[in-house]
Amino acid sequence: MKNEFLEEKFSQQYRNIPVSFVRSILNAVGQKEMISFAGGLPNPLLFPVEALAESTQAVMAGSGRAILQYAGSLGYYPLREWIANRYSAKYNMTISPETVVITNGSQQAIDIVSKLFINPGDGVILEKPSYLGAIQAMSGYLPDFREVDLDEDGANLTQVEHLFLNDDIKLMYAVTNAQNPSGISYSAEKRNDLAMLLRRYNQFLLEDDPYNEICFEGEFPDPVRKFAPNHVAWTGSFSKMVAPGLRNGWVVLPPALVPHFDKAKQSADLHANNLTQYVLHHFLTNNDLDVHLQRIREKYAEQAGFMIEALKRNLPDEIRITKPTGGMFVWLTLPEGLRSDELIQQTMKRGVIFVPGNSFYTKGQGSQHIRLNFTNAEPADIEKGVKIMADEMKKLLCAV
Amino acid sequence: MKNEFLEEKFSQQYRNIPVSFVRSILNAVGQKEMISFAGGLPNPLLFPVEALAESTQAVMAGSGRAILQYAGSLGYYPLREWIANRYSAKYNMTISPETVVITNGSQQAIDIVSKLFINPGDGVILEKPSYLGAIQAMSGYLPDFREVDLDEDGANLTQVEHLFLNDDIKLMYAVTNAQNPSGISYSAEKRNDLAMLLRRYNQFLLEDDPYNEICFEGEFPDPVRKFAPNHVAWTGSFSKMVAPGLRNGWVVLPPALVPHFDKAKQSADLHANNLTQYVLHHFLTNNDLDVHLQRIREKYAEQAGFMIEALKRNLPDEIRITKPTGGMFVWLTLPEGLRSDELIQQTMKRGVIFVPGNSFYTKGQGSQHIRLNFTNAEPADIEKGVKIMADEMKKLLCAV
Repeated sequence: MKNEFLEEKFSQQYRNIPVSFVRSILNAVGQKEMISFAGGLPNPLLFPVEALAESTQAVMAGSGRAILQYAGSLGYYPLREWIANRYSAKYNMTISPETVVITNGSQQAIDIVSKLFINPGDGVILEKPSYLGAIQAMSGYLPDFREVDLDEDGANLTQVEHLFLNDDIKLMYAVTNAQNPSGISYSAEKRNDLAMLLRRYNQFLLEDDPYNEICFEGEFPDPVRKFAPNHVAWTGSFSKMVAPGLRNGWVVLPPALVPHFDKAKQSADLHANNLTQYVLHHFLTNNDLDVHLQRIREKYAEQAGFMIEALKRNLPDEIRITKPTGGMFVWLTLPEGLRSDELIQQTMKRGVIFVPGNSFYTKGQGSQHIRLNFTNAEPADIEKGVKIMADEMKKLLCAV
Repeated sequence: MKNEFLEEKFSQQYRNIPVSFVRSILNAVGQKEMISFAGGLPNPLLFPVEALAESTQAVMAGSGRAILQYAGSLGYYPLREWIANRYSAKYNMTISPETVVITNGSQQAIDIVSKLFINPGDGVILEKPSYLGAIQAMSGYLPDFREVDLDEDGANLTQVEHLFLNDDIKLMYAVTNAQNPSGISYSAEKRNDLAMLLRRYNQFLLEDDPYNEICFEGEFPDPVRKFAPNHVAWTGSFSKMVAPGLRNGWVVLPPALVPHFDKAKQSADLHANNLTQYVLHHFLTNNDLDVHLQRIREKYAEQAGFMIEALKRNLPDEIRITKPTGGMFVWLTLPEGLRSDELIQQTMKRGVIFVPGNSFYTKGQGSQHIRLNFTNAEPADIEKGVKIMADEMKKLLCAV
């Protein structure tokens, strides 16, 4: 039976959500056959499977009946408390557990903050490039995206201030640590300056921070949230520090926002599932998280190093390669005439995929960029995949 | 620091979401001190805690690493397959696993279907009364709610057809089995007739069915979905048949809708958490669900019977009391002059809460109704609570 009547009924907001290029490629080709630098998957060998299995057993034995009942929309209080304590101490700032809300990954925090604020046509400032998942979530609220340049040390604040002054801006979205896709982290100075701008103009920042704990050397500077706690919703995620399949993240909110986020979370799905919240809390309080994180950081730094070395050895000299200080991605800039969306058509035929830069922009730009994930590929595959990419780049460059 | 600037920024869609009266009461008074007929909580004594603990241990031991990684947005395939098989067999109809999507409770299915379809001002047909959680979720998309009467055998289809014919209707929402709050179930004939209307006018129904398995005698008639598979999104929930704290439900979609729901789910929170999906699948395939369900049905029928008996014995004769055939609620209709929102102010002082009917209507009506939950109160509390309600009703009636 034909079903066109359904598609004709789709809302404007839904029609505005872009397709994820990554997902559609993965659907088209079947991920398993390919060397994939496309996804954003943590290295599964670093998942603390046994410790989490023990925690799972312990919480079901100790709190099974409470876990299985409905609960409040804000999340499991001891887990909110753990988060508040860890980051209060880490950054020497005050976070009340009451202002921490557990979400289904930080993705849901982006969706709910967008729902709270964005009317159709409202200005939303994005870094250029920006995180695809945020572009998707926010697009569902029909914003007018205003992109600012992402310099080596963070967003171009002259452009940000210009927009705050002259445009109808509702919200700014930024990934301040090891940004996906660029790998860029904000300098300490820029964080402070951005906080001052937010306070001066009473603007609101969604500071998305899933890679906070994945810094290769030392720690990232203090979050913007520290300097403007009433002007920032600051997300965090267990996906990179523990495991993404549990789908738990959080957001630290200004106190005034908590009851509103609560109501919006309730209307979305009542509350985050209790089981993984209890499991995470048990895991975090019964294991040495910092030892675990150190293992991840070392491994990812090693994998990043291996990929960068392979890229430098194989790619044409004209290609610019970032050196990430954390996170999961390397960002390439191609020379004039070489388009990543054309390149992938060739490499796909030879079993190699990545994400063309276009996915991270809202106005069709970005084809001169490539995002490569290094955390979920073994050295032999990295070497082989990079060689195929280099080979196809050279062919396309000759044809220019 | 004052934070009014934040509230001034709130979107129209967020401002349109009504506060849950139940939640605000519970927050205000502290649930534990009260005799509560207000919530919609399953009886925790019936949770299969030990079996779920065993399943949890088994899946973490057998599939830990896969559980902990990211997964597809549609859900864990074996669980989707289990759902498809069970309900294909139960209703002698064809459900492909590919058309079943796992959500965070059926609440999220309501939210996502609303996001897919509702533009501001679109007509959405609701039963009068309707489920509060659906009113909340849908309100976030600024619909124009059009209420139709809920007769003893389901929605008034003359009114539905009139709206299909004469108004700009995008979607209809109905709970066809043991409706929350009224307890009403659609007759077999009405299900068929509604399906015919949907097909004749190419209209779309969100058939919300969380109480499908909680029928006190025999089974509810076939769902509307059976007779109009391309015109219905049919939800289900593990919250009432297994446990709500796992936050897993599902929706059966027309095939044409699946890729779109997929994209919207992805933008909301990427995917449902893997752990509870694996746990549920293991539990469902290693235990006799029907034996478990039989225990729930018997207990709830007993609790319902006890509450109805207490109501009949204590309440003034003018008050109409439904006799539910399943689900979790009794619905009262008060005589002229007695208002449930006034009554609760009195009973609250004496430690008894319920939900005044207003919460289940979108235009301020409903104060002549009361929703009572019977699944989460022990006989002694039911007796005591009903006596206090009766006492305060009589006082108010005398004052009329």
